[in-house]
Amino acid sequence: MDCIFCKIIAGEIPSKKVYEDDTVYAFYDIAPQAPVHILVIPKEHVLSCAREIGAEHGALIAHIYEVMARLARELGLEGGYRVVTNAGEDAGQTVLHLHFHMLAGGQLGAMA
Amino acid sequence: MDCIFCKIIAGEIPSKKVYEDDTVYAFYDIAPQAPVHILVIPKEHVLSCAREIGAEHGALIAHIYEVMARLARELGLEGGYRVVTNAGEDAGQTVLHLHFHMLAGGQLGAMA
Repeated sequence: MDCIFCKIIAGEIPSKKVYEDDTVYAFYDIAPQAPVHILVIPKEHVLSCAREIGAEHGALIAHIYEVMARLARELGLEGGYRVVTNAGEDAGQTVLHLHFHMLAGGQLGAMA
Repeated sequence: MDCIFCKIIAGEIPSKKVYEDDTVYAFYDIAPQAPVHILVIPKEHVLSCAREIGAEHGALIAHIYEVMARLARELGLEGGYRVVTNAGEDAGQTVLHLHFHMLAGGQLGAMA
């Protein structure tokens, strides 16, 4: 499959990994939009939050949010963080593999 | 409980509702940051995505994402949408009741 995130998960494209388990992979965004900018993605190739997400993904999504809460504790992000998921062109989704942006490390700006 | 979102759900504070079921309530944000700006909240008073979210909320969170996908179809948001969840001060979380911002209706700006 010609998906850049699937290739990152497979190790075919290098990434700065911060977390990995059986279902989730997390790495630093190469074009950070905040002092801390991590991408958390499911290993399963789900297109977006607007497409293909159903009740069967409940455990996966909850787990992704748990991973982000855990990363926040481990990285000492005491001021909190923002989670952003983009679906479609208006939102600027550039990779068609579901991903959650975790933005933190200082006062964040507007959401859109 | 002195929570503005709990009061909105209870009908004690008026809101422009777009969706409601047994576990979720959705309404238009009174200070929109995009042409379409909807807040989707669980009826259960969960503090934030960084606090209290656990495996037991999997079905709830997946359902919230399903509701947003459904609203996008019903509202004709063919360009897609952005989902934002803020946790803590740095992210600008102002109400301590978990909420998902659904932003759409045109090309969106930066995420932070």
